[in-house]
Amino acid sequence: MHAYRSHTCADLTKDNVGETVRLSGWVHRIRDHGGILFIDLRDHYGTTQVLCDPDSPVFAQVEKVRAEWCIRIDGTVKARAPELVNAKLPTGEVEVFVRDLEVLGQAQELPLMVFGEQEYPEETRLKYRYLDLRRETMQRNMVLRSDVVASVRQRMWGKGFKEFQTPIITASSPEGARDFLVPSRLHPGKFYALPQAPQQFKQLIMVSGYDKYFQIAPCFRDEDPRADRSPTDFYQLDMEMSFVTQQDVFDTISPVIAGVFEEFGGGKAVDDPASWPQIPYKDAALKYGTDKPDLRNPIEMQDVSEHFRGSGFAIFAKLLEQDGTEIRAIPAPTGGSRKFCDRMNSWAQKEGLPGMGYIFWRDQGEGMEAAGPLAKNIGPERTEAIRQQLGLGVGDAAFFLGGKPASFQKVAGRARDVLGHELGLIDENRFAFAWIVDFPIYEKDEETGEIDFEHNPFSMPQGGMDALQGDPLAVKGFQYDLACNGYELVSGAIRNHKPEVMLKAFEIAGYGEDEVKNRFGALYNAFHYGAPPHGGCAAGIDRIVMLLAGTSNIREVIMFPMNQRAEDLMMNAPSDPSTDQLMELSLRVIPQE
Amino acid sequence: MHAYRSHTCADLTKDNVGETVRLSGWVHRIRDHGGILFIDLRDHYGTTQVLCDPDSPVFAQVEKVRAEWCIRIDGTVKARAPELVNAKLPTGEVEVFVRDLEVLGQAQELPLMVFGEQEYPEETRLKYRYLDLRRETMQRNMVLRSDVVASVRQRMWGKGFKEFQTPIITASSPEGARDFLVPSRLHPGKFYALPQAPQQFKQLIMVSGYDKYFQIAPCFRDEDPRADRSPTDFYQLDMEMSFVTQQDVFDTISPVIAGVFEEFGGGKAVDDPASWPQIPYKDAALKYGTDKPDLRNPIEMQDVSEHFRGSGFAIFAKLLEQDGTEIRAIPAPTGGSRKFCDRMNSWAQKEGLPGMGYIFWRDQGEGMEAAGPLAKNIGPERTEAIRQQLGLGVGDAAFFLGGKPASFQKVAGRARDVLGHELGLIDENRFAFAWIVDFPIYEKDEETGEIDFEHNPFSMPQGGMDALQGDPLAVKGFQYDLACNGYELVSGAIRNHKPEVMLKAFEIAGYGEDEVKNRFGALYNAFHYGAPPHGGCAAGIDRIVMLLAGTSNIREVIMFPMNQRAEDLMMNAPSDPSTDQLMELSLRVIPQE
Repeated sequence: MHAYRSHTCADLTKDNVGETVRLSGWVHRIRDHGGILFIDLRDHYGTTQVLCDPDSPVFAQVEKVRAEWCIRIDGTVKARAPELVNAKLPTGEVEVFVRDLEVLGQAQELPLMVFGEQEYPEETRLKYRYLDLRRETMQRNMVLRSDVVASVRQRMWGKGFKEFQTPIITASSPEGARDFLVPSRLHPGKFYALPQAPQQFKQLIMVSGYDKYFQIAPCFRDEDPRADRSPTDFYQLDMEMSFVTQQDVFDTISPVIAGVFEEFGGGKAVDDPASWPQIPYKDAALKYGTDKPDLRNPIEMQDVSEHFRGSGFAIFAKLLEQDGTEIRAIPAPTGGSRKFCDRMNSWAQKEGLPGMGYIFWRDQGEGMEAAGPLAKNIGPERTEAIRQQLGLGVGDAAFFLGGKPASFQKVAGRARDVLGHELGLIDENRFAFAWIVDFPIYEKDEETGEIDFEHNPFSMPQGGMDALQGDPLAVKGFQYDLACNGYELVSGAIRNHKPEVMLKAFEIAGYGEDEVKNRFGALYNAFHYGAPPHGGCAAGIDRIVMLLAGTSNIREVIMFPMNQRAEDLMMNAPSDPSTDQLMELSLRVIPQE
Repeated sequence: MHAYRSHTCADLTKDNVGETVRLSGWVHRIRDHGGILFIDLRDHYGTTQVLCDPDSPVFAQVEKVRAEWCIRIDGTVKARAPELVNAKLPTGEVEVFVRDLEVLGQAQELPLMVFGEQEYPEETRLKYRYLDLRRETMQRNMVLRSDVVASVRQRMWGKGFKEFQTPIITASSPEGARDFLVPSRLHPGKFYALPQAPQQFKQLIMVSGYDKYFQIAPCFRDEDPRADRSPTDFYQLDMEMSFVTQQDVFDTISPVIAGVFEEFGGGKAVDDPASWPQIPYKDAALKYGTDKPDLRNPIEMQDVSEHFRGSGFAIFAKLLEQDGTEIRAIPAPTGGSRKFCDRMNSWAQKEGLPGMGYIFWRDQGEGMEAAGPLAKNIGPERTEAIRQQLGLGVGDAAFFLGGKPASFQKVAGRARDVLGHELGLIDENRFAFAWIVDFPIYEKDEETGEIDFEHNPFSMPQGGMDALQGDPLAVKGFQYDLACNGYELVSGAIRNHKPEVMLKAFEIAGYGEDEVKNRFGALYNAFHYGAPPHGGCAAGIDRIVMLLAGTSNIREVIMFPMNQRAEDLMMNAPSDPSTDQLMELSLRVIPQE
């Protein structure tokens, strides 16, 4: 017999009754039923009930066993009495009577119970991650992550993509976040950087003629920690293609993403990629107040400025006299009660707004009545016009926000989310996708008035060089995001592969030719040797797995995550370097005050 | 029609004759045949001949096109005249008459030709890697690498392994080489390290109950550069299993490795894994002079000390009076000529030895004669006894080395290689594998007399705690390597999962309890919470691909490698950090003298 097991803890069924078997695993739970010891023996695959009574030659040893000891048992498979069959367990028809026991690994008193799903402080979970990871939810999440990544790979191979590894110890990359640096020992005083993303490398791979690249790529950004982001490394499905248009990229990646959600979405409905809308950035901002809308929520905001211009509601009427202002309505179907509207108004105040004006429509016996302070101020005709524009009726409400869109848009977007959830308008059993397109290439810093890149600096402007001769803020890029249920899952672009257009684009953002050559030299040089048109995208692996696992904490889908102070409590990282190490690297630490 | 292509440059056949097609690619070669321009248009998939004469509306533009310009053409598919068909090319039956041309990316004068396989200095190739990578051999090598890694993944999935990603920014790992450090911004003066291998993490994954782990894992060692090693990062197929013996690991990984070599070995014979010998380390040292023998070479060395003890060959006879010395013979079938033996003797002198004594056997008309100085000195009886022990005959030779094995073993191993090659004994069309087993746990530093770990410190000693009570140098470990054609492809061990045995093992190597807890704390702590027996191995991906690609330069199988001074000439890494970056990291560079 094998040294450790003849079967896993998920294998045994009625067919094995009478066999002598060997199992290894962890003591999940022990119960003493009147002198008979029952142990749920657990391994990665399942659980098998083993039992022992004083007739067993190893009863005394089994009595000493405690939770999470790793043991090996030999025993005889017995059928359970019909009333004791556990239909929920694949091994629930049988149990194993223990005849021999070997303790493979004892366990000290547990700082964290594996049995049950008791909550523990995150610090405890991360310090004793090897116990935390034994728990059912974490086992499921880790296997899910592994299976998702495997499925992504197979889907990409199936589409003719090759996976190529790009360097991890490399040069500073210009993604806009902060680099992690790695001091060079052989070149004292010089540093490598870890890639924020393989952006330049994947573009160089296209210039090198490889046509279709992907990589499940580790990315490194030294950012301040946040709940939904790993403070050190994270993973992207990074892909790039040559000789493609934006639509080609969509047609390639959409079925991959949809397929993964179908495969691992637990039966939730997944919108057919052929029906994923392409929403211009500007429309998304207007209708949803965000570039990553949750389209399970049917609410679409509308510009209702004309109904308030010169109206009796002085606040809005005056506001509209300023340039660049508007009044936006958030329809709230079924939200038509004063109680609900007041609650939303309070919510808005907590978000830092003076409040949200509202109108709601109710049945007053002899017909519909529009209620709420706004309705009174603007009068019945304007109120009715608003109702008709928004397509609302009795029992519905609408909320109003005014000013420059930049000042209220984000809150409006959140209000739309809250309304959707509060009113039960969101189908929790659906993954709803949309491509957001036509992002502007540039944005203006409101304070300094300076023009900078809105997305990443490598996108091809729509209209090419000609477009760059006009108003920079009017230039749209071939750059796009994929939104799903309110999250940005994918981001990408058709790249700017023409060196002269690249120079011009950077010039507008205030980068001189020397700086471009200095910071993006490899790419800029490569573009002078027959660069093909190319484009692609990157999808956040951690985020996809979070969505599929139904968690909003990224540490639930990473095996050994850092805590939010970027520390590994189990491995004790970061730690003090030795004097020798610093010497070798020609570095000195500046003492802190 | 698609913006860039209706077909790839490998697609068109006779079936397409008459069609209007669109192709995009690079100008591989241009020829002017009496006013007709022929262009080999190349993309990742193949080459198509396109042509243009003054009848084409774009003749003037096509005339301007140069090598490696990236272009899009529209044209009509024509059958080639039978005598012009190129049977070697999938598209060799047709050509495309150009009717429209778009230059997608011009190319400056080329520092490196893509057409042909001209040699260039490595610095040129790495600086213009995007041109170098377009060349046929590099395209083939990169695709091979991608396909090998994909095949490995599929094989591991097929065996029930899950791939889990382990941290890249983490704590210093104790693999024995030098760590790359990453300064922490949030914790000034502290440093992370990049993992030399995921050794501790994969063992922690086993303690966490995941049963079967693998990862195509990037590994980082700050080692001094060498031709066959990347000076920064390299990749391993890293795997680990719980509840296994050494033989289980062999049975799992051998078919994976053999399968990959069968799939990508270009038809070379691959030894059946069931027949891979398991050679104890001690035997490998004796027979092959190395722990990574090339078993295509049939030569096996033998200890022939007894024939020289007290013999007339005073040098060896005196040598044998010292403790720990021996005389070893390297048989050289078919090497039996004075000319050849003298040449090998000169080779040995170049290797720093005083020389290699030899005997060779020739036919002297009336029977076999043993020739060479050694034979004379020791006389016919001893000479004949040696011949019989080695199983040699007329036309063969044997070479002799003496002393302490440590002093000559490596040279003996190299001599065996040289003999095998020179005598044509090596089957170049074969991949020959062997597991080397029973490595000693400890070795003694000849100078200091100190005992240290021979392999890695995490292996389980054969015999467990009991074995550690005796002579440390006699303790063998459950640790093993896989050798193939003279390379070490895989290295692994059954791990020491018992904390008390771990402490004892480290104590023997001079590490106190505090140091173990401090340096390997995560693992040591985890072993106190129900650790399962486990083991695994790691296979060098770069080396496997090198063997399959038939190259001995690791940079031929890495897309963007560093040069041998650990510099990336294309990306300009490492480089000077900015003052701000150093400030943020609380670091100061110590000026060099």
